[in-house]
Amino acid sequence: MIIVMEPTATEEQIQKANAKMQALGFKTILNRGEVMTVIAAIGDKRLVQTQAIEAIDGVREVKLIQEPFKFASRESHKDDSVIELGRGVKIGGGEPPVIMAGPCSVEDDKEGLLKVAVAIKSAGGQILRGGAFKPRTSPYDFQGLEETGLKYLAEAREKTGLLIVTEVMDSQDVELVADYADIVQIGARNMQNFKLLKAVGKAKKPVLLKRGPAATIKEFLLAAEHIMYAGNPNVILCERGILGVDSAYTRNTFDIASIPVIKKYSHLPIIADPSHATGRRYLISPMAQAALIAGADGLMIEVHHDPDKAYSDGAQSLTIEQFEAVMKEIDEIIKFKNARKK
Amino acid sequence: MIIVMEPTATEEQIQKANAKMQALGFKTILNRGEVMTVIAAIGDKRLVQTQAIEAIDGVREVKLIQEPFKFASRESHKDDSVIELGRGVKIGGGEPPVIMAGPCSVEDDKEGLLKVAVAIKSAGGQILRGGAFKPRTSPYDFQGLEETGLKYLAEAREKTGLLIVTEVMDSQDVELVADYADIVQIGARNMQNFKLLKAVGKAKKPVLLKRGPAATIKEFLLAAEHIMYAGNPNVILCERGILGVDSAYTRNTFDIASIPVIKKYSHLPIIADPSHATGRRYLISPMAQAALIAGADGLMIEVHHDPDKAYSDGAQSLTIEQFEAVMKEIDEIIKFKNARKK
Amino acid sequence: MIIVMEPTATEEQIQKANAKMQALGFKTILNRGEVMTVIAAIGDKRLVQTQAIEAIDGVREVKLIQEPFKFASRESHKDDSVIELGRGVKIGGGEPPVIMAGPCSVEDDKEGLLKVAVAIKSAGGQILRGGAFKPRTSPYDFQGLEETGLKYLAEAREKTGLLIVTEVMDSQDVELVADYADIVQIGARNMQNFKLLKAVGKAKKPVLLKRGPAATIKEFLLAAEHIMYAGNPNVILCERGILGVDSAYTRNTFDIASIPVIKKYSHLPIIADPSHATGRRYLISPMAQAALIAGADGLMIEVHHDPDKAYSDGAQSLTIEQFEAVMKEIDEIIKFKNARKK
Amino acid sequence: MIIVMEPTATEEQIQKANAKMQALGFKTILNRGEVMTVIAAIGDKRLVQTQAIEAIDGVREVKLIQEPFKFASRESHKDDSVIELGRGVKIGGGEPPVIMAGPCSVEDDKEGLLKVAVAIKSAGGQILRGGAFKPRTSPYDFQGLEETGLKYLAEAREKTGLLIVTEVMDSQDVELVADYADIVQIGARNMQNFKLLKAVGKAKKPVLLKRGPAATIKEFLLAAEHIMYAGNPNVILCERGILGVDSAYTRNTFDIASIPVIKKYSHLPIIADPSHATGRRYLISPMAQAALIAGADGLMIEVHHDPDKAYSDGAQSLTIEQFEAVMKEIDEIIKFKNARKK
Repeated sequence: MIIVMEPTATEEQIQKANAKMQALGFKTILNRGEVMTVIAAIGDKRLVQTQAIEAIDGVREVKLIQEPFKFASRESHKDDSVIELGRGVKIGGGEPPVIMAGPCSVEDDKEGLLKVAVAIKSAGGQILRGGAFKPRTSPYDFQGLEETGLKYLAEAREKTGLLIVTEVMDSQDVELVADYADIVQIGARNMQNFKLLKAVGKAKKPVLLKRGPAATIKEFLLAAEHIMYAGNPNVILCERGILGVDSAYTRNTFDIASIPVIKKYSHLPIIADPSHATGRRYLISPMAQAALIAGADGLMIEVHHDPDKAYSDGAQSLTIEQFEAVMKEIDEIIKFKNARKK
Repeated sequence: MIIVMEPTATEEQIQKANAKMQALGFKTILNRGEVMTVIAAIGDKRLVQTQAIEAIDGVREVKLIQEPFKFASRESHKDDSVIELGRGVKIGGGEPPVIMAGPCSVEDDKEGLLKVAVAIKSAGGQILRGGAFKPRTSPYDFQGLEETGLKYLAEAREKTGLLIVTEVMDSQDVELVADYADIVQIGARNMQNFKLLKAVGKAKKPVLLKRGPAATIKEFLLAAEHIMYAGNPNVILCERGILGVDSAYTRNTFDIASIPVIKKYSHLPIIADPSHATGRRYLISPMAQAALIAGADGLMIEVHHDPDKAYSDGAQSLTIEQFEAVMKEIDEIIKFKNARKK
Repeated sequence: MIIVMEPTATEEQIQKANAKMQALGFKTILNRGEVMTVIAAIGDKRLVQTQAIEAIDGVREVKLIQEPFKFASRESHKDDSVIELGRGVKIGGGEPPVIMAGPCSVEDDKEGLLKVAVAIKSAGGQILRGGAFKPRTSPYDFQGLEETGLKYLAEAREKTGLLIVTEVMDSQDVELVADYADIVQIGARNMQNFKLLKAVGKAKKPVLLKRGPAATIKEFLLAAEHIMYAGNPNVILCERGILGVDSAYTRNTFDIASIPVIKKYSHLPIIADPSHATGRRYLISPMAQAALIAGADGLMIEVHHDPDKAYSDGAQSLTIEQFEAVMKEIDEIIKFKNARKK
Repeated sequence: MIIVMEPTATEEQIQKANAKMQALGFKTILNRGEVMTVIAAIGDKRLVQTQAIEAIDGVREVKLIQEPFKFASRESHKDDSVIELGRGVKIGGGEPPVIMAGPCSVEDDKEGLLKVAVAIKSAGGQILRGGAFKPRTSPYDFQGLEETGLKYLAEAREKTGLLIVTEVMDSQDVELVADYADIVQIGARNMQNFKLLKAVGKAKKPVLLKRGPAATIKEFLLAAEHIMYAGNPNVILCERGILGVDSAYTRNTFDIASIPVIKKYSHLPIIADPSHATGRRYLISPMAQAALIAGADGLMIEVHHDPDKAYSDGAQSLTIEQFEAVMKEIDEIIKFKNARKK
């Protein structure tokens, strides 16, 4: 850690800051410049809060020189994590990209859901997505079928052999959702719901963690760290678009560079959700393909048997026919990547 | 609602969209332009999801022409809401600004907390703030004393007569926190934790709702709507800074214009938190004063008996002496506003 | 255009707004709802300023239903524009991706520039980039060699057969730069320097227009519209990253979805600049490849013969060896795309 | 300057980086930690580009520990700058707030302009604003009367004794504009038009520099530095709103905290423009007052004799009557501030 003192800091303040760092267990070196003094503090920065040090009079700034996450970091785990999802499906490392698809919400029309599930399976997907608990900006929007929705998903799994991923919104529901789901999803708006992160950190199922719309990469990895620190190493990250300068033509800004960035700093698998990232049907295929080329370990795509009647996010849902066409293009990319490896 | 059709929309698509709007209970008028057709749909837009309509083929865009919130809107409640907080303290309307102050976290040093509380009371504050449950970006930071912290706050209330406001982070803790607190706080990162909003919507205590760092004003008011819709009309809003273009000189961007904007569109009281908005001690007094001039119904300010030793947010906490000086400047503003009214 | 009146608008205000729209040459239809009145105004919205209408008392909002750009729009020009750049190189439509590469700045070491140019040519690039006029955030940074730099570029063109693209920063220099360059570049920070846009609109050379770091897609296309309206139809757009929520791990946020969005709304060619978009060497190849998959018509890549000694942007410049390796990966993508077309 | 080496940096790389810093004239100290080595380089950081150092292999990050601006910095000029604007009007330091007001554009109706000017003078304003050269997002919008507009402004000055401030958009027009204007304005979109900054840096008139909508405070002060470095010390800064998370209720986000921040780091005067910052008439008075309380040295307010007919920005322009009412509220704030000083 680097502690930069104000040019006006007194000798007493410098000594106080120095002593505090030593008291915290750091080895310190004082660099006295012509303008200002800089204290280099050597040790494990994860044990202290920089704000406590910034509060010392005469301190201008505290600069970290290591990443603040540990379990999630590449330093602590050199090789890519490969997570077993069940029924032989694995994600991460050199595994083939995993395709998660399905409607935004699980709705009353169970037959529609089953129809979608069968189509996903036959198009080569591995996982069925669908929200039984729905976070909605407005209280007047559909809030989800809750346990009934989970049962419909489980039935679709029985029928197709797909795995299921579904969101949990509240610590009280973690056990219930984990009972049904193969992967428990944390939605973007709950990325910093720390009690919920802790709760899924104690669950026995892998967690799909979506990036918050205004979260930095550091905050995203620290959210994963919360889950891992609570005991669950099986975290799959998901880039789903962030706040940008424009929301007229796309719903969010798809931060595709975050995929190779996260692969550099973390060993965790990361997938992309082009449906939420763009909010436009015509952008799903090009963005899905680009994400795979950028290194994504999987994709999450919204597909609905009748998007005009969808309770939520119809505008970005593909029809079954559109999904099948997109899957063909995705397959070409996957084959190209396989051919390239050799 | 206005439905704009694509220039390429077929007559069949136009009729389908029109029929759908009528089926949803809207009265419709077709405006056929030279380039495109626009359907005006008249009725209460809160009952439908625009995305379901946007998903219809041939629809370019759906434009709302009313605000999507109802209980929180000025239209539904012309006069300012005045909320009774207990012990004669009221907030909103023409009531004098309410000052909430205290440390970021409740810490082990109970005597320190009591010292701060006494100072707040004698400087003219009405409410003691302090976190017993702490949302922390990193799992390695102090997470709060939980119920012990609530007990310390209650003891400070007994000793000083101040009311207390404290954060709840999880639906499972709402009952516990509401038992101790006079006002239950929802933190910025939980502004869209909808299960928690619903849970405090059923609590019997007023709720202080902080604006999320990337939340639009519409999302902020819709979060209040969730609480009100669940049954609790006593919501106090809090502007605490949003994501801006710069985080080098201030922690967040203090969106001071949101105060008069919200007063125009909503009847709910709104306070400002210059400590989180700026993250810098020297900015707290000017921003607190500016917020009052802009119409804030109250302030939330961080003060700590020994900021150098604070477990969290020391850099933005005032010392007791600094707080007393700030309160003098705030008092001048309050007196100026009173004199002006006459 | 849709004019939404306030719920409180008087009949007189409604008539006044209606009359104003008719006076402006629009055909109008009044839709009187239960809550508010909406005026549909049919005609060419490009002729009026919405703000003039918003200023009418009783008007709540004015909503455009057509894109505000014309020459740049796909509506006005159904097919992709293909721009002739010279020496047989074309960009746009089905033409093979055009690779522009070179150092950030043209520097004193002319031999270094020539070395880079030879390497670009032999790796399959078509265009040499290099700044002779440099926009710099700080006045203490290197400002460019100006005309000397242009001469070095021209010499490299003679030697290699590459075309050259270089930035112009001021209307007074347009003639000079256009004399030397094959493509005149407008930098991101000058995207809304309207006098400069007009000046290059009168030049006889194609223009490479970089997207401003905070520009919406609409503003970007309107900047192109300025150039086209002034008489120059040969505009190449360039996505180079925008302001995002994070600048710790990437310099900008690469808005890759803007590529297919712009292809939908405009006929102009668009290239991507992964060097500026990310600011990190290790991200250039994956982002370049992803951009091509997303539909980019070309790439701009920084390469320097000795990045450690570069006067600017060394950290994001590839060495010649790194560039050659990246070009191999790019070639694989180009071949894949060609194979796919068939 | 602090150079942080990668944990994997070799001894050779460390020595190379160290030698480079010494060659650049820095005194260096090597801090060898358990995980990584940090080089503290002592000297004047304004002479080097950090990117050149970041490009050295093995360097993870370069951290500046001083502000990169010099002439604009408080360190170089302890006291507030007071700038003489002519006719006895001064801005900055303890001088009374300076009010600049007028229409967005100078329009054909000269009598309207004179009417506004008379009203400004009699309401207590000192400076008439009005655009003769207009930067417009769309080429189809009114572009300004150019020299005719300047003549109208000069005539209004003769008639009222007000000073005039008006924008220059291009380096070729600086001489012309400076001939007419008392203060030459650089618009927000030209804040990083470096050739223009240099050109006004050579003019003999004070410069009003508006903050770019996405500019950080550092970039803003560096733009001022460009002007000062070119020879003109008389720079007045203007906060006019930045990009925020919401543009539905306000045009920009008014970054009011930037006022005391800039006063801490710079000696230059700073004014606020609540008209552009908010884009809403009803917000102008509260934001103007808040800006003065936050320390603004002046205000810029749009007022038009007939906003319904304004060529630009009518929706945010006050009528003369509204302006007079706002000026009364502003006067109360000024009197309050004066009373407080004593």
